[in-house]
Amino acid sequence: MTEITGYDTIRWEHDKVVLLDQRRLPEKELYLTCDDYRQVVEAIQTLAIRGAPAIGVAAAMAAALGALQSPTRQVQEFQRHFQDICQVIAGARPTAVNLTWALKRMQALVAAHLDQGIDELKQLLVTEAQNILREDIAINRQLAAAGQGLIQEGDTVLTHCNAGGLATGGYGTALGVIRAAWEKGKKIQVIADETRPILQGARLTTWELMKLGIPHTLITDNSAACLMAQGKIQLAVVGADRIAANGDVANKIGTYGVAVLAQYHKIPFYVAAPLSTFDFSLSEGRQIPIEERDGREVTQIQGLPIAPDGCRALNLAFDVTPHGLIAGIITERGVILPPLPKNLEDLRTNMEES
Amino acid sequence: MTEITGYDTIRWEHDKVVLLDQRRLPEKELYLTCDDYRQVVEAIQTLAIRGAPAIGVAAAMAAALGALQSPTRQVQEFQRHFQDICQVIAGARPTAVNLTWALKRMQALVAAHLDQGIDELKQLLVTEAQNILREDIAINRQLAAAGQGLIQEGDTVLTHCNAGGLATGGYGTALGVIRAAWEKGKKIQVIADETRPILQGARLTTWELMKLGIPHTLITDNSAACLMAQGKIQLAVVGADRIAANGDVANKIGTYGVAVLAQYHKIPFYVAAPLSTFDFSLSEGRQIPIEERDGREVTQIQGLPIAPDGCRALNLAFDVTPHGLIAGIITERGVILPPLPKNLEDLRTNMEES
Repeated sequence: MTEITGYDTIRWEHDKVVLLDQRRLPEKELYLTCDDYRQVVEAIQTLAIRGAPAIGVAAAMAAALGALQSPTRQVQEFQRHFQDICQVIAGARPTAVNLTWALKRMQALVAAHLDQGIDELKQLLVTEAQNILREDIAINRQLAAAGQGLIQEGDTVLTHCNAGGLATGGYGTALGVIRAAWEKGKKIQVIADETRPILQGARLTTWELMKLGIPHTLITDNSAACLMAQGKIQLAVVGADRIAANGDVANKIGTYGVAVLAQYHKIPFYVAAPLSTFDFSLSEGRQIPIEERDGREVTQIQGLPIAPDGCRALNLAFDVTPHGLIAGIITERGVILPPLPKNLEDLRTNMEES
Repeated sequence: MTEITGYDTIRWEHDKVVLLDQRRLPEKELYLTCDDYRQVVEAIQTLAIRGAPAIGVAAAMAAALGALQSPTRQVQEFQRHFQDICQVIAGARPTAVNLTWALKRMQALVAAHLDQGIDELKQLLVTEAQNILREDIAINRQLAAAGQGLIQEGDTVLTHCNAGGLATGGYGTALGVIRAAWEKGKKIQVIADETRPILQGARLTTWELMKLGIPHTLITDNSAACLMAQGKIQLAVVGADRIAANGDVANKIGTYGVAVLAQYHKIPFYVAAPLSTFDFSLSEGRQIPIEERDGREVTQIQGLPIAPDGCRALNLAFDVTPHGLIAGIITERGVILPPLPKNLEDLRTNMEES
């Protein structure tokens, strides 16, 4: 599916999980091979793999790997083992809901097949993890097709962080929308926020855009406002880590600022995310748990200190953008327009009925 | 004057210019000694010394150094030499008007003393450069005293870039206001934007705040919006590189975004700058020349690549904040409040009369 770009974010291979180590990009394209589910958990925690949909796929594959590692031949005991494994995986990172979404799906599969033998159950889980990967790529292509019409010939699109093939099973959400517009033949440009502290924009988004041949310019996060004021940005598209029932969106730190600035400059601000990113159990964004990471990710860049020894730094990994700032959420079921609370409620009702 | 902090941003010593190499901070406190005015120009261009008022002092000292280097014994020829030298210095960086302000003052001194001998003229210029340094520190203390009342007990103040002792002859403008509030005994905290790409906030502002013992937290530039939304910031204070007649302010890239975000969150946004930063010859901010620096300052951090080879990056060093977003400009003549166009016109008239 990712034939153009020539890399896999993550794949299942000979009962192992193989993932592109995104900490080393763009300098090196190195793959990590995990034969223990705890290695996948560590890869998620240390950001070797990141991006909500990719974390979902990784969690599913970690669970399948954990299932293979279970020594028991007794189904009830296997289910308990599997639940414990899923709990460890669920604790890897708190904000992206795709992680628990994937684990719930894997656990539901076990619950629905307790009449099967252990080996069959394990095989079902391995197949399901691969299904989740395959479906994620297909869903990205669907939402990209649904959203690309929002980008016009000649537009310059701002994106924050990385919501590309690397953040998903493949193809990408926000970057998928941009890619689909480009593949339709529209001459567009991308402005990539570098996205401190982890620099996913500088390291990953530019790397993907280079592979795709889409014209792009890297900027420091603090330059976006100035370019908006100069009329150089026509729309902004970002991904999401979790979306509450009312349409409030948790995404990479800095997203909320982009959304406020976009509104001030009358630039539409879109979110692109699969339905697995929605958490209808939360009525609004402030209920979303926001991960606070080690301050050294701010005071050091790739191990190099950039602040005085002992300097206190705050490192919130995500922020919440209220739905009122969002022009639309691009999903595999189409673009959900404002008013988001009502239209998401309708979507939810439809999903439950179908 | 800077006894608490134990460093000099720049000083005149035995007919040489000695300046703290800010490129090496916070890791190393190294002083550069310049005995050729071109070395000072290079120090300005390479950001060994930066900050509009400090650039003004450096330009004056560079001019004095250049004057000492002139071999002629003929006053008219000396004046021509001196003009050439000043032109080279004036070209060092385009945005901070303090640079040309200081050079005009030095050239006016020469023009007013053409009846003197060469040696007397040179000595006058050396004294004048030292006067400009001394006056800058005194002016910073005045504007800090005028502005500190804007900060209340318990406030958390956001600042962007570095407008401290390092950006001036000493004491600081925006950081001077914060320092004065702290020295009045107010329990305050500072949030320092790291300020990509050169990281003056991470490297310099935190270094100064540590020396002063003022509680502070370093954040990535893209975190400010989220903290504003959480009610954790009571006001923002920044410096300026050039202020147009209507109150539009050019300052470090990212300042405009902070100002828009502050307005959205109903947080007052102040600018602190000496009158030497005003350029009444420009009616509005869009006439201010904005320096575009090498994209490698964005694609590399301290020489370490953070983006793919050949990645295009835009590196605007400054942006312009329209006066409508500014709650007040703190100067040595007090805080100028809105409407800024009218009140700055009155200030200008007063200055011309006095």
